[in-house]
Amino acid sequence: MRFHTRKWIKPEDLNANETLFGGRLLEWIDEEAALYSIVQLENSKVVTKYMSEIDFQASAKQGDIIEIGVEVVAFGKASLTLSAEVRNMMTRETIITISNIVMVNIGPNGKPLPHGKIQVEYVKDRL
Amino acid sequence: MRFHTRKWIKPEDLNANETLFGGRLLEWIDEEAALYSIVQLENSKVVTKYMSEIDFQASAKQGDIIEIGVEVVAFGKASLTLSAEVRNMMTRETIITISNIVMVNIGPNGKPLPHGKIQVEYVKDRL
Amino acid sequence: MRFHTRKWIKPEDLNANETLFGGRLLEWIDEEAALYSIVQLENSKVVTKYMSEIDFQASAKQGDIIEIGVEVVAFGKASLTLSAEVRNMMTRETIITISNIVMVNIGPNGKPLPHGKIQVEYVKDRL
Amino acid sequence: MRFHTRKWIKPEDLNANETLFGGRLLEWIDEEAALYSIVQLENSKVVTKYMSEIDFQASAKQGDIIEIGVEVVAFGKASLTLSAEVRNMMTRETIITISNIVMVNIGPNGKPLPHGKIQVEYVKDRL
Amino acid sequence: MRFHTRKWIKPEDLNANETLFGGRLLEWIDEEAALYSIVQLENSKVVTKYMSEIDFQASAKQGDIIEIGVEVVAFGKASLTLSAEVRNMMTRETIITISNIVMVNIGPNGKPLPHGKIQVEYVKDRL
Amino acid sequence: MRFHTRKWIKPEDLNANETLFGGRLLEWIDEEAALYSIVQLENSKVVTKYMSEIDFQASAKQGDIIEIGVEVVAFGKASLTLSAEVRNMMTRETIITISNIVMVNIGPNGKPLPHGKIQVEYVKDRL
Repeated sequence: MRFHTRKWIKPEDLNANETLFGGRLLEWIDEEAALYSIVQLENSKVVTKYMSEIDFQASAKQGDIIEIGVEVVAFGKASLTLSAEVRNMMTRETIITISNIVMVNIGPNGKPLPHGKIQVEYVKDRL
Repeated sequence: MRFHTRKWIKPEDLNANETLFGGRLLEWIDEEAALYSIVQLENSKVVTKYMSEIDFQASAKQGDIIEIGVEVVAFGKASLTLSAEVRNMMTRETIITISNIVMVNIGPNGKPLPHGKIQVEYVKDRL
Repeated sequence: MRFHTRKWIKPEDLNANETLFGGRLLEWIDEEAALYSIVQLENSKVVTKYMSEIDFQASAKQGDIIEIGVEVVAFGKASLTLSAEVRNMMTRETIITISNIVMVNIGPNGKPLPHGKIQVEYVKDRL
Repeated sequence: MRFHTRKWIKPEDLNANETLFGGRLLEWIDEEAALYSIVQLENSKVVTKYMSEIDFQASAKQGDIIEIGVEVVAFGKASLTLSAEVRNMMTRETIITISNIVMVNIGPNGKPLPHGKIQVEYVKDRL
Repeated sequence: MRFHTRKWIKPEDLNANETLFGGRLLEWIDEEAALYSIVQLENSKVVTKYMSEIDFQASAKQGDIIEIGVEVVAFGKASLTLSAEVRNMMTRETIITISNIVMVNIGPNGKPLPHGKIQVEYVKDRL
Repeated sequence: MRFHTRKWIKPEDLNANETLFGGRLLEWIDEEAALYSIVQLENSKVVTKYMSEIDFQASAKQGDIIEIGVEVVAFGKASLTLSAEVRNMMTRETIITISNIVMVNIGPNGKPLPHGKIQVEYVKDRL
């Protein structure tokens, strides 16, 4: 898995126990999944359809740096299934993993649209 | 299920398809689950441990009002299992449901602490 | 009065005295008044026209949970007058009350528009 | 009245009618009143106690620049009463005025503390 | 130089050393430069093209009040060159200065547009 | 140069010309420089001291994905000099480059502290 985005835990990201707020982490993962899908599917209209169960294995505290990784599980006809992992950057300890995040490719009419992609592509190879 | 919190969808809550961004919705649900747990467990240190799978059944657009409902599934020794539903307030259409959200009661030492609660309580009965 | 929305006081909601910043509280009340009006008037274009005097009776600190209540004072021809109360959810102590908040129903041309409503309605009765 | 702070209306500052959200405006005014009081009273712990009625006379739209003015109405023993005006910077049209905003000087124990000030001072004269 | 905008340093504005985050300061300066240019050029479409080197001379901490000053260095054909200074309001200590910030006047087609201005104007003289 | 962080341009990141607000971009670069320095210097207290001139070469619009790259120019005794580049992820077009960003390693007393580092290290080699 490749980790493409880093976040720095700030006061506004903490819960009442002064550790990283779970909801903020889910927001970051969903944004990363969307970014990844937009790049892969070459379509800026992509929405989240499904996330499999989420187990918060470890936490993080203010000032920690975490990194968010995403990789492809499967290409569907109009969808893309990803898995995600978030880890503490300094210790490489896993904070959370999500096995399946299904993103759907949306057409101009707001409905699912086949994307025609069958494998991971790199932007540098497209240019 | 009782719906205790309402949100108004604003421009900063939208994804690239101009519908409600899934990550923002998860952030709101997790915050509501935390609030509910803090009130029930009478302890301000409560953290999210687990969420079961999430199916985005419908979306919402800018200007829509949604309401977030939470109810108790089970009281554990140091945990509280909740379910959540988010619906469009004007149409009552369900946007998302999550069957199990496990919140853990945390003690002063940062570790799980038995909470001694076995049923839902109302603040008005405590006063 | 019914309390429909809860808020959790976070670091970014505090003033220099480390208590709830009054301006943030007014922002939340105004948003709640707008939400309530949109639901009652079944029109998403509603603006704030007037607020009567505001007395900050008590404060709140980080980690507190407050709830915001709104009720109808009077239905005008193109307006709706509300009163609001914010209280600490755990103690039921009143933080602030505002006797009159006048919201105006706006038409497609940006001007006040008669709304035809004369009493409180519940969404469940409309469906 | 002197206008010390300017704001630029952005998408996140709008209400459902696409005009400046009243709650955001109140938040800005309260912050400006606090800043002004901190400078005058030479104490960083100052809280809002009271605001007189608020009449929204005009609005503003995205991209407009507004300026916020504050001046002293009276010095109390432990308080400072201010008035505020917000106007559109390009047209000088008044958006809102508030006749009385009472700010209270807070001591190290969190209670009102006499501030000993009886007139407006300028920072340049203190240095 | 005249100082038109004040900011209050809050928790979300701090870096890991608990002092004012440099990036936040640059964001505020750029916004102030844009506001100033919009007023001078009487055009709401103005973008930042260039900033000369930036030396962080002093810092600020939570609760401090800073003020941001901007003045004109030169009027170009389709541009406006400004200088900026940020200082601690209570001590008048300089936090940062930027000698040249080039703002460009943009036309309806998104390209630079001559603005026809050759000297500083005051809004009150225009009305 | 390696690009470690991606950002998705949202409505709140735009200027009045509906393109990426320069101040927001500088905020993101400064945060990325801080993150990179914290990882390299293995010290969470790092502050920005200097940035060389900034030329905005291209812009970005809502929905675009940009990536931020940082690399080391030189190790000082208590500082680290970086360069940064931001590019549009889909086209690889450069949006901005900054040749020198000087970050300073801060000790427990708030003053510069020698860091003892002389070359780039990778976290995986430390573990």
